[in-house]
Amino acid sequence: MREVSSAYTVSIHYDRRLYRQDIAGSIAHARMLAKQGIIAEGDLSAIEQGLVEIREEIEDGSFVWRAELEDIHMNVERRLHEKIGDVAGRLHTARSRNDQVALDVRMFTKDAIGDILGGIHDLRAALAGQAEANADVVMPGYTHVQRAQPVLFSHHMLAYFEMLGRDAERFRQAYRRADVLPLGSGALAGLPYPIDREFVARELGFGSISRNSMDAVADRDFLLDFQAASAICMMHLSRLAEEMVLWSSDEFAFIRLSDEFTTGSSIMPQKRNPDFAELARGKTGRVYGGLMALLTLLKGLPLTYNRDMQEDKEGFFDTFDTLLNTVAIFAEMLATMSVNAGRMREAAQGGYMLATDIADYLVERGMPFREAHGVVARLSEYAVERGVQFEQLTLEEYRGFSSLFGEDALSISVDSSVAARDVPGGTAFGRVRQAIVEARAELEAENER
Amino acid sequence: MREVSSAYTVSIHYDRRLYRQDIAGSIAHARMLAKQGIIAEGDLSAIEQGLVEIREEIEDGSFVWRAELEDIHMNVERRLHEKIGDVAGRLHTARSRNDQVALDVRMFTKDAIGDILGGIHDLRAALAGQAEANADVVMPGYTHVQRAQPVLFSHHMLAYFEMLGRDAERFRQAYRRADVLPLGSGALAGLPYPIDREFVARELGFGSISRNSMDAVADRDFLLDFQAASAICMMHLSRLAEEMVLWSSDEFAFIRLSDEFTTGSSIMPQKRNPDFAELARGKTGRVYGGLMALLTLLKGLPLTYNRDMQEDKEGFFDTFDTLLNTVAIFAEMLATMSVNAGRMREAAQGGYMLATDIADYLVERGMPFREAHGVVARLSEYAVERGVQFEQLTLEEYRGFSSLFGEDALSISVDSSVAARDVPGGTAFGRVRQAIVEARAELEAENER
Amino acid sequence: MREVSSAYTVSIHYDRRLYRQDIAGSIAHARMLAKQGIIAEGDLSAIEQGLVEIREEIEDGSFVWRAELEDIHMNVERRLHEKIGDVAGRLHTARSRNDQVALDVRMFTKDAIGDILGGIHDLRAALAGQAEANADVVMPGYTHVQRAQPVLFSHHMLAYFEMLGRDAERFRQAYRRADVLPLGSGALAGLPYPIDREFVARELGFGSISRNSMDAVADRDFLLDFQAASAICMMHLSRLAEEMVLWSSDEFAFIRLSDEFTTGSSIMPQKRNPDFAELARGKTGRVYGGLMALLTLLKGLPLTYNRDMQEDKEGFFDTFDTLLNTVAIFAEMLATMSVNAGRMREAAQGGYMLATDIADYLVERGMPFREAHGVVARLSEYAVERGVQFEQLTLEEYRGFSSLFGEDALSISVDSSVAARDVPGGTAFGRVRQAIVEARAELEAENER
Amino acid sequence: MREVSSAYTVSIHYDRRLYRQDIAGSIAHARMLAKQGIIAEGDLSAIEQGLVEIREEIEDGSFVWRAELEDIHMNVERRLHEKIGDVAGRLHTARSRNDQVALDVRMFTKDAIGDILGGIHDLRAALAGQAEANADVVMPGYTHVQRAQPVLFSHHMLAYFEMLGRDAERFRQAYRRADVLPLGSGALAGLPYPIDREFVARELGFGSISRNSMDAVADRDFLLDFQAASAICMMHLSRLAEEMVLWSSDEFAFIRLSDEFTTGSSIMPQKRNPDFAELARGKTGRVYGGLMALLTLLKGLPLTYNRDMQEDKEGFFDTFDTLLNTVAIFAEMLATMSVNAGRMREAAQGGYMLATDIADYLVERGMPFREAHGVVARLSEYAVERGVQFEQLTLEEYRGFSSLFGEDALSISVDSSVAARDVPGGTAFGRVRQAIVEARAELEAENER
Repeated sequence: MREVSSAYTVSIHYDRRLYRQDIAGSIAHARMLAKQGIIAEGDLSAIEQGLVEIREEIEDGSFVWRAELEDIHMNVERRLHEKIGDVAGRLHTARSRNDQVALDVRMFTKDAIGDILGGIHDLRAALAGQAEANADVVMPGYTHVQRAQPVLFSHHMLAYFEMLGRDAERFRQAYRRADVLPLGSGALAGLPYPIDREFVARELGFGSISRNSMDAVADRDFLLDFQAASAICMMHLSRLAEEMVLWSSDEFAFIRLSDEFTTGSSIMPQKRNPDFAELARGKTGRVYGGLMALLTLLKGLPLTYNRDMQEDKEGFFDTFDTLLNTVAIFAEMLATMSVNAGRMREAAQGGYMLATDIADYLVERGMPFREAHGVVARLSEYAVERGVQFEQLTLEEYRGFSSLFGEDALSISVDSSVAARDVPGGTAFGRVRQAIVEARAELEAENER
Repeated sequence: MREVSSAYTVSIHYDRRLYRQDIAGSIAHARMLAKQGIIAEGDLSAIEQGLVEIREEIEDGSFVWRAELEDIHMNVERRLHEKIGDVAGRLHTARSRNDQVALDVRMFTKDAIGDILGGIHDLRAALAGQAEANADVVMPGYTHVQRAQPVLFSHHMLAYFEMLGRDAERFRQAYRRADVLPLGSGALAGLPYPIDREFVARELGFGSISRNSMDAVADRDFLLDFQAASAICMMHLSRLAEEMVLWSSDEFAFIRLSDEFTTGSSIMPQKRNPDFAELARGKTGRVYGGLMALLTLLKGLPLTYNRDMQEDKEGFFDTFDTLLNTVAIFAEMLATMSVNAGRMREAAQGGYMLATDIADYLVERGMPFREAHGVVARLSEYAVERGVQFEQLTLEEYRGFSSLFGEDALSISVDSSVAARDVPGGTAFGRVRQAIVEARAELEAENER
Repeated sequence: MREVSSAYTVSIHYDRRLYRQDIAGSIAHARMLAKQGIIAEGDLSAIEQGLVEIREEIEDGSFVWRAELEDIHMNVERRLHEKIGDVAGRLHTARSRNDQVALDVRMFTKDAIGDILGGIHDLRAALAGQAEANADVVMPGYTHVQRAQPVLFSHHMLAYFEMLGRDAERFRQAYRRADVLPLGSGALAGLPYPIDREFVARELGFGSISRNSMDAVADRDFLLDFQAASAICMMHLSRLAEEMVLWSSDEFAFIRLSDEFTTGSSIMPQKRNPDFAELARGKTGRVYGGLMALLTLLKGLPLTYNRDMQEDKEGFFDTFDTLLNTVAIFAEMLATMSVNAGRMREAAQGGYMLATDIADYLVERGMPFREAHGVVARLSEYAVERGVQFEQLTLEEYRGFSSLFGEDALSISVDSSVAARDVPGGTAFGRVRQAIVEARAELEAENER
Repeated sequence: MREVSSAYTVSIHYDRRLYRQDIAGSIAHARMLAKQGIIAEGDLSAIEQGLVEIREEIEDGSFVWRAELEDIHMNVERRLHEKIGDVAGRLHTARSRNDQVALDVRMFTKDAIGDILGGIHDLRAALAGQAEANADVVMPGYTHVQRAQPVLFSHHMLAYFEMLGRDAERFRQAYRRADVLPLGSGALAGLPYPIDREFVARELGFGSISRNSMDAVADRDFLLDFQAASAICMMHLSRLAEEMVLWSSDEFAFIRLSDEFTTGSSIMPQKRNPDFAELARGKTGRVYGGLMALLTLLKGLPLTYNRDMQEDKEGFFDTFDTLLNTVAIFAEMLATMSVNAGRMREAAQGGYMLATDIADYLVERGMPFREAHGVVARLSEYAVERGVQFEQLTLEEYRGFSSLFGEDALSISVDSSVAARDVPGGTAFGRVRQAIVEARAELEAENER
């Protein structure tokens, strides 16, 4: 029993990931204490030197983690005491565990968002790359998984470019809410020392300082922002994953994922299981679960700090790792995916997807929309009965349904259909080429930052 | 059976809430069609006149909703045809149900966010009002629902002011993502007409137009943003609700909610059930559920429109209504709540909450932090054994533990403790008064917008 | 404001669905009170007569619901008082709102489960019917949406028969936990009257009575059981829905849903959007959300009744309606679906799905499993290079890879592959026919109950 | 990148927990193969010997886990090959990874449920123990966290005994659904070998065999059952945790948790943070999240196996560990908790909780319920105005409100109130003592199983 109960509160197996933030935060705090005359300069030197050594010990693997000390803060604190003796105690002047842990997690979150933004950038570059490499490939556009209208494959890729652009924006906004220094809030009420919070914020690169100490130690909104942004991003990736799974099937056969991103059967050469796409789709669940876990945790908690909040970190780390790896996987998987342009075009030509184009042809020539639809409905019925596609009908047959049909009706094709959608955001060749140029420019601008 | 199956796809019982948006969107679309010469000016007049009349019929209750027409779009469309005949059909030129419904929901979302922001403003005003009215009331600050350090009640109220400020920011960001015109995307590929999307955006007050037609009809991020922001806001309210429930108990007895916001028992006069706070706390569940529902719905959906997405609206409306009503309830409940300042002060004085202040006293006089803690631990033990509070100890008793104690140690009190937290964000009297001034200024600035 | 606050607590717009349960519960309670001599027989007659009339008023639509009375209980209570005067008050002897509402919801839950079980029965019958009608149709069995091994379509249908069988079991277990009478628990502590709880249980058809009054008024496990069982059942239906969507696509073209369950485009005759399957898949979200809402609501609630719990009903009703309608839709959609057996067989023959059968052939003839796999891998590679299927290879070609191949190797086919899986639970023709017989017997046994 | 992509699919860091199940399953499978003559007896000996050695290597820590082999199955398989050479390959006859992993997880689930049931048993014993040790302690019963009626503390404890009894039942039902052998289903279609599935089931202690091979490899209902049962159980524990947090506060001061289950402040002796209860309450979130993750994962997955399903295990292990530890913690925390009976009684006596008893007194003497309520309302108002409790009123004062009051009205007390609730499930002393006896008997019966 004693073992169970002591293990229950331990967090060192996951919160040691915060070591860099914890040490950087302590150094900044100590510098501020010295600057304000709260501790002596000599104490600062000892503390700073000790902390730098501890960071090195951790990074070279010589640091001994002790579960009985429960968390990262106590592990570092104890080690510092071993190194520099009672002076170590002065570091804890004007600081509480509550504002310290809030600081560490905020710093980690900011770093994490930086990594995620990098990953999203790479994935968007891969999407733009596929769009560019297959700029004029025509495929069926689907609604309800039914073929609806011809579109460009590049246009389809850029739809994901847009989604991930919103994801990046959401993470940048989450960053700004994380970028608020909580240190100086003490346990909950502020501190009775002449501290300089703005100095600490500058040292650590925070954009602002928290305005209410009780809120500062009770607030985990920045983690919810991260989890919500991650859940939405994983939702986007699950949609892309679904399409990669479908497109990899024998039935669609639109793409071929590289060997690295499929697993096969030694004896069934055609079987190319899109395992990575499937896993990503499955991992959407754990990211949704992480969001739900944190929302549940915080529901109904009175102010300020409650121990429940220790549970905020593990799900966050898991979501961060999952999303970061998943965007990296997709970037590479997209970059190495090959497109079966012939098969896509073939699929786009079958069916009666040009019906709306024919109706639009009549509308352009003055027929009211609903009437044009009636004409094309009868024309389609006629073609279906004869088992032919529109392209195989003669002009006479066309004109049997409406005298507005002219010679040019015969040139309605998947290409003319695509070309006709020449509006901002539409799939026309030029529009998509222009969208690719803009996508590239957007990525360039990010690179330059 | 036929009844079940026909009812299954019907949405008119909830999507008729979109009537204003649907009609406004159609009028703007028609104007653009006329401007571009796609329909005649006379057609525009008929369409616009008909739509205005339909809006009036809906608003005066004379419109006959027909379930067999399934949704708001078909109900309006059919009625328009009854009024103006075949000309009505021209309205559907260069528009699809897919971009139309995306437009309507985005417009509604923008309006909804406006309402929510108004409600949050009022609630923040009520919080600031309570802070102002009870600016110097001292209460125990809690961690782990254990008394930890004295704080000002006004400081506690302002913690929620901060949370709701972040909520407002989140909604404003969600607004900007909703504020993108999808119309002109057609079913999925764009449209083969010389339309002017920027004109429609200006007519309807949209900040920008969508950049990819496939994304535009498949995207429901703006609803997820709304749902996530709502879930986080309800979480904040659930925390406040929890505190109101606890503070209303016989055991705490810190506040008295007005009769309007409690229900009592005719025979138990002391029983003042905080039903509204409890209901709000409970409704947190349905808002979380709504977020989870939409995330689940969208998971793994291939592009572009799938009928699953019809299910995006009911949960959204429910979340909107729930949150809007809940913030309104809280604004009024806060405004009419009375505070038992005596009881709060009494609770703040019991216990040994001043221990950290005594330790800080020693640290200020040069004792290392950890050593000071040791001294106070022994002092506390001494006081507890004797059953007295710190305030009842003599200077001699104090000095028995450390010669650093001077006469001024005897004046450590809840008031001195509060006063000492004189750092940005701290609970010191002046800091909180300043925070109230800033809160008022922030609210004023919002009023002037 | 007053309007918002008064509406916030009102539940009559949804809890009036409990009217039958509320009235039946009141009648049973009154009978018990009279039997025990707590009220007079004359009072019972008046109460019972009054309640029966109220039920009739509700059912014939003449009852006037009053929102200001908030809930079903007060609406019925007030009306009873109008009818029979002060005697109505005696009905509330030895009963509290807390045990009354628990009773009503439990009774409704039991009825709801009965309806759901009926719906599941019908859907399972439809699945068995499709299995029977297409008993020997061969199709590709998929893993990873990749063709893996030939199976019978009937076997595939029966997989869902199994899932829904577990769903039914889960609902029957939920029924038993709902089937516990809470009445007699009072507000929370029991009642100071000589009541006969067993009598009431018998009157109302409850299997047992609750054993702890505090638990009885605080417990909503039976709703969680219902919600969890519903979520799992909807998950099963979402999988079936997904398959119906895929199979309806041009790419698969395995099935044709009846007109009633698709919506088309007037001008695109081939477009048969599987809207009902998609909506069902989408509605999975709202059912998951309902479960999450109730779990969230109950998290961290102290005993016993808290007003949060009023929020238990709306999500429950929604889940009930959604699931009941969805199983009914699927029963009919399955029953009217037509199967394209030729297309399925064709898909089963393409690819190299027989590779495992060829390997098994070698293993049967003594070759170790891993070695056989190596042989077939080389054979497959050979066939793929030549662009031929296994069936097109000659015996000589086969024997070039292993001398264990004999004439009978040439007769390996999708039919022989299916036939070979002759183990309990396998897809062999006889096994599946037997499974259909057993399924029919199981359904019959349910009918006879 | 290569590192990310190779790590993405690896599961060995968590699925190695399945080693015992994997090896036991392989041994049973090999025995069956030998019995059926599919492999030679000598092969069986080698395989069995090799597997037993591997289990020992794993248990003594000498086994070398290799991430590049990805999962537990391949790690064991490779090691077996190293030990016994090509014979190892024969073990994979008539088995697929798909039915193998389903087997392992089902076996683990059954073991896990056994452990959970043991933990629940111990916790229920602790609850019964507290009830017994404090059988007659009176406390306020609460609704809305408002004092409502006096109850026995033991009655309150037994409410949780009931909840956990339902939890146990739910886990036993989940056990039965896990207790179905999937082995013999092959990849999805069954197997072309004369296997004996019933033999394997007997070897491994399974109650039955799966009836449909496609369902068997696609089904994870048993994990959902586990997750749902765990979520509900954690919900119960979160309610108990909430009460322990409240009862530990200065304001309630009803209980004192043992030092082992609180953390204090070295300088604030009164601060006894109920960290374990808080952590348990917080961990409710992760368990809810785990349920939501699995439901999300399975939503819309077509049959049969998809790689998404690899993600089923990590959340399951986490939920299992969390719940098992939490029930163990609670068992010990309850057992070592001390009850402040004096404080509870004092709280029960304050307020006007006896109002309903006084009303019941009048009803018993013939006054209609609603009228009695009116009398007591006026009486309460009278007492509140004078600032006295009911017990302090004279008989004359009582009779001023109703002549039905007699001498015995003066003896209405918290004890008489408790004693009067003498109905099945009520809080009367004898009823609760009887309930304790029954609880003990139930626990005894479980011990004897």
